[in-house]
Amino acid sequence: MNEEVIPVKKVAIIMGSDSDWPVVKAACTQLDEFHIPYEAHILSAHRTPVQAAEFARDARKNGFGVLICAAGMAAHLAGAFAGNSTLPVIGIPMKGGAMDGLDALLATVQMPSGIPVATVAINGAKNAAVLAAQILAVSDDDLAARLDEARVKMARQIAEKEAKLQAELAQ
Amino acid sequence: MNEEVIPVKKVAIIMGSDSDWPVVKAACTQLDEFHIPYEAHILSAHRTPVQAAEFARDARKNGFGVLICAAGMAAHLAGAFAGNSTLPVIGIPMKGGAMDGLDALLATVQMPSGIPVATVAINGAKNAAVLAAQILAVSDDDLAARLDEARVKMARQIAEKEAKLQAELAQ
Amino acid sequence: MNEEVIPVKKVAIIMGSDSDWPVVKAACTQLDEFHIPYEAHILSAHRTPVQAAEFARDARKNGFGVLICAAGMAAHLAGAFAGNSTLPVIGIPMKGGAMDGLDALLATVQMPSGIPVATVAINGAKNAAVLAAQILAVSDDDLAARLDEARVKMARQIAEKEAKLQAELAQ
Amino acid sequence: MNEEVIPVKKVAIIMGSDSDWPVVKAACTQLDEFHIPYEAHILSAHRTPVQAAEFARDARKNGFGVLICAAGMAAHLAGAFAGNSTLPVIGIPMKGGAMDGLDALLATVQMPSGIPVATVAINGAKNAAVLAAQILAVSDDDLAARLDEARVKMARQIAEKEAKLQAELAQ
Amino acid sequence: MNEEVIPVKKVAIIMGSDSDWPVVKAACTQLDEFHIPYEAHILSAHRTPVQAAEFARDARKNGFGVLICAAGMAAHLAGAFAGNSTLPVIGIPMKGGAMDGLDALLATVQMPSGIPVATVAINGAKNAAVLAAQILAVSDDDLAARLDEARVKMARQIAEKEAKLQAELAQ
Amino acid sequence: MNEEVIPVKKVAIIMGSDSDWPVVKAACTQLDEFHIPYEAHILSAHRTPVQAAEFARDARKNGFGVLICAAGMAAHLAGAFAGNSTLPVIGIPMKGGAMDGLDALLATVQMPSGIPVATVAINGAKNAAVLAAQILAVSDDDLAARLDEARVKMARQIAEKEAKLQAELAQ
Amino acid sequence: MNEEVIPVKKVAIIMGSDSDWPVVKAACTQLDEFHIPYEAHILSAHRTPVQAAEFARDARKNGFGVLICAAGMAAHLAGAFAGNSTLPVIGIPMKGGAMDGLDALLATVQMPSGIPVATVAINGAKNAAVLAAQILAVSDDDLAARLDEARVKMARQIAEKEAKLQAELAQ
Amino acid sequence: MNEEVIPVKKVAIIMGSDSDWPVVKAACTQLDEFHIPYEAHILSAHRTPVQAAEFARDARKNGFGVLICAAGMAAHLAGAFAGNSTLPVIGIPMKGGAMDGLDALLATVQMPSGIPVATVAINGAKNAAVLAAQILAVSDDDLAARLDEARVKMARQIAEKEAKLQAELAQ
Repeated sequence: MNEEVIPVKKVAIIMGSDSDWPVVKAACTQLDEFHIPYEAHILSAHRTPVQAAEFARDARKNGFGVLICAAGMAAHLAGAFAGNSTLPVIGIPMKGGAMDGLDALLATVQMPSGIPVATVAINGAKNAAVLAAQILAVSDDDLAARLDEARVKMARQIAEKEAKLQAELAQ
Repeated sequence: MNEEVIPVKKVAIIMGSDSDWPVVKAACTQLDEFHIPYEAHILSAHRTPVQAAEFARDARKNGFGVLICAAGMAAHLAGAFAGNSTLPVIGIPMKGGAMDGLDALLATVQMPSGIPVATVAINGAKNAAVLAAQILAVSDDDLAARLDEARVKMARQIAEKEAKLQAELAQ
Repeated sequence: MNEEVIPVKKVAIIMGSDSDWPVVKAACTQLDEFHIPYEAHILSAHRTPVQAAEFARDARKNGFGVLICAAGMAAHLAGAFAGNSTLPVIGIPMKGGAMDGLDALLATVQMPSGIPVATVAINGAKNAAVLAAQILAVSDDDLAARLDEARVKMARQIAEKEAKLQAELAQ
Repeated sequence: MNEEVIPVKKVAIIMGSDSDWPVVKAACTQLDEFHIPYEAHILSAHRTPVQAAEFARDARKNGFGVLICAAGMAAHLAGAFAGNSTLPVIGIPMKGGAMDGLDALLATVQMPSGIPVATVAINGAKNAAVLAAQILAVSDDDLAARLDEARVKMARQIAEKEAKLQAELAQ
Repeated sequence: MNEEVIPVKKVAIIMGSDSDWPVVKAACTQLDEFHIPYEAHILSAHRTPVQAAEFARDARKNGFGVLICAAGMAAHLAGAFAGNSTLPVIGIPMKGGAMDGLDALLATVQMPSGIPVATVAINGAKNAAVLAAQILAVSDDDLAARLDEARVKMARQIAEKEAKLQAELAQ
Repeated sequence: MNEEVIPVKKVAIIMGSDSDWPVVKAACTQLDEFHIPYEAHILSAHRTPVQAAEFARDARKNGFGVLICAAGMAAHLAGAFAGNSTLPVIGIPMKGGAMDGLDALLATVQMPSGIPVATVAINGAKNAAVLAAQILAVSDDDLAARLDEARVKMARQIAEKEAKLQAELAQ
Repeated sequence: MNEEVIPVKKVAIIMGSDSDWPVVKAACTQLDEFHIPYEAHILSAHRTPVQAAEFARDARKNGFGVLICAAGMAAHLAGAFAGNSTLPVIGIPMKGGAMDGLDALLATVQMPSGIPVATVAINGAKNAAVLAAQILAVSDDDLAARLDEARVKMARQIAEKEAKLQAELAQ
Repeated sequence: MNEEVIPVKKVAIIMGSDSDWPVVKAACTQLDEFHIPYEAHILSAHRTPVQAAEFARDARKNGFGVLICAAGMAAHLAGAFAGNSTLPVIGIPMKGGAMDGLDALLATVQMPSGIPVATVAINGAKNAAVLAAQILAVSDDDLAARLDEARVKMARQIAEKEAKLQAELAQ
């Protein structure tokens, strides 16, 4: 009865700019599917550094279990959060600017020793949410079961596409 | 008294080749410092695919909470584990071969939708262990406290280096 | 009378996602032109790892001679097939995602020692089929002759384009 | 009794410069292990273009089944052979010069439509030989069996390294 | 009276595919402006290797002074011409395929010792023509004067644009 | 008499790790040559984020005119300072880790709109100091004169090397 | 009363081509907002080298305090200005051509020892202007105050976007 | 008797720094072998811009036929010469600094429309000399003959290496 009494940890989804929202939204959709509570916020490591640092420092005691940070170019947001919290921080390097996201990828993943950022693919908002769910599921068997179901569903979708392809080839 | 009765989840550290061991060892050292139980294994996505898939599939029920996979070049190990388990999988792209680890970084982080790998820096074995600890600490306040202490210690080390630099400059 | 009694080996064309089909289709067209039997399937190294491994393991005894695998981003499909079969595996790195196929190219070609993937150009579906034909033609003189004819045809097409250019320049 | 009467096809290993020999030698070693006959030659696409083209054009009738070409920098050797023969051509991009082999990789793999080069990893001489063996094994069950044995041996080596690691960890 | 009796050397513009023509055309336009005779041809290093080699070998005695070769991807055309002629060969790496011309640039410029290709910018057809003119002008003072005039004209165009900008800013 | 009464602004040189010191030291040497007062400190954007932010916020009122920040990998230090101060921040991307400084370059230069970092070459510590001097010299004619002298000296050094080369060639 | 008697230094904005104007214009807009006088000019390091060198050499005595240079591809403009003036030179690498600005970034930032260029992000015209303002503000407290106000305004904009997002999420 | 009365044009070899000399020397050696007169100089586009521009502007009337410029990092030297002369300018991108010559390659080859630089491989000093010889040979049949002889010699060297390899393999 563990799951009922301990409130489920929330996920925070932070983006550096509202222009990231169309991509980042996919993380919310995925968390909704897993019935995981979350908050989404716009906070900038460079334009609102004080608020960003505060949010990160208070995140654990405010009931967050995982922090997802999405930023592009010299993407410091995830690193800034990781420097101010010991919660797992997931970084989404955003495509954009001139470098197509390679700048954001390197700025997110190449963190110095002691302060990791769990980096997912460029624009990988959905996968950030799946990873957050996997992290919370380490101590939540119900959620783990929902993750397994999602895998079964994915495999079924592949099977359906395969069937459709065979039908097309058989014509 | 939650922490005492529920056995702490183990971390699995998998490497694709024994040549990765000198780098990967740092993950073990870090986990030891956090008193987190772990196993280290050599398993190859390409040379022992059956055993690798089996290990991944049984990992949750065998008491693992986080899987760390280190591989170089066309680094498929973390992805192969992620495809066979819904546990969080941390990927360490190994430097090596002709591309200095950029190949391994891209092969580890650019996972397709639905199957994330939490990627850390190239050769970032220590950070993989820190991230694993952060993941386990989401539901383990004791471990969270140890992580906070480690941060304080890191800050102190910076302060000591700063003091040493000032002494050098003052001469 | 070798060619008549021994059934021609089939080519398997595997793609990780149905979104690869518009590009991969060119491989089928090319194999049709060479009168080489083939099957095309959607199988994912990450979403249907068990089925993918099975297909690869049984491919030789199921009459396949060459396996063509197309995948993008952290493209593990060809590698996963190569790890589960000793048939020649041809990898097509698919353009897509944020890195324009460089990620898929490196994830496909930089295979570890002992497990090669015969990698063709990014989105090089037609060339994958030509390479498959070349492989089957090593022991099939008829097919080798058809390959030579295709070369003659290509040279003729160049000559026609050259003639057209000269006509344009002469105006 | 197929294997006895039809002479096994030879593999040609061509390198653009004798400086490639220390790396390319590994392909010979591997072919020796598989009991596959081969010739090794130094021929340059740029310095001896006539001889290189001739070798390629006559390769099939001279009993070769697969051509392996190793070259660095603006690596045209494999492409030049592929343009002059319809035998499968395997390209080994050689590390060297200022670009660490990325130039050779792109110059080898990005072949135009109709003229594929089966590209292996940078400096991947051993894998070129394994791929050549896999190609010849499509119509040679004996060789296919030897390839399977080599896989079993590789897996055993991993198991031995794993055992050694466990012994080290148990101390 | 040097210029009148010695026939001006022609420039050959070779492209690997007619799809290069819209870009390569700019070289013709530029040569026309300098009153330099030229021929344009479609020849492929891979699809018509014999004709390409022949053209290169006979180029000097056929009255050509400079060879311009445009090709994309694993761009071997300029290198193949350079290997078969000691005339100066100018390479235009064509943008296209998945790598945006970086593959063609490296495949064109990174030539081995002894066989240079004078490489210009990606898609730099006009500059290839200017360079060809500069080469011919080394022994042609008239042409050198025309080149100097073109520079004066370019500077005047900049001055006109500057004047227009100042007018715009002054409003 | 402006220059005498207004105290010269100091330069702050901040490095993320004491391992940067051997390279960063060159900035101190250069500032010493220009008689510009400076302080050097070790502060980390990730390990001592609070102190780093504080230093940046108080820098102007503490008499600093320019901030130089040196960091490697996912180099956030300069960006973190730029987010907390409106003083000009000069970023030195440090070579190191697996990516040879490309990661640090992109993480330093690709700053979002409104928060610039004046980025110099990878490991360009001396140039960071020269740039700081140029910035301070905008309102300090004495320093501007010293900068002009340094240029004359550089030109003289080139002339000396040229003379030495001519002597060597004349032998 | 410092600000009134000493005339404010002007900023020069130089671009290599009028095609850069749509991007570079943002620098003018930003300088207008800070009430900083500026001139914008089209000058080319390659097409009008004499005028460019002259402008740079006379810039300080003509009342300029900072030089902003925007150029693409083999972007030499900022470097050419930096070689002819000891004023701070800000370089804007322009996106364009085939390399998406990576060529311009490297050609701008990787300056040799002694001749720095303060490089901003690819196409970072606005940030070039902000950096110019920060440089002038080192000795201009009024301007420094305006810079601080701009930061407050940026933070307010983020807060407004955050409020809008929360409203959207609350629906 | 053309060759005797018209003095052979000289080649100028310019390097940006004396540290380039060990590599650049190979160009001198090669020109010596072809009996082509040359001068070598150290001139910097950034540190001695006036002298560099002057040298370029006077080069044609001073008897030079080709200019070879070697520079690393943000390699502007060749471009600066090309902007001040209509002689053919050959650029050697020098390896060095943190980017292994990719910065120098792009800064040398990606020249704007109208001002080409004939770029050779990174550190390709020998090829720069061969290209210079090829350019001079357009109007010098004697030199053209010497170039053809050099090719024959190169082919012979390959043949010798091939013979040596066969001897080694035959043991």
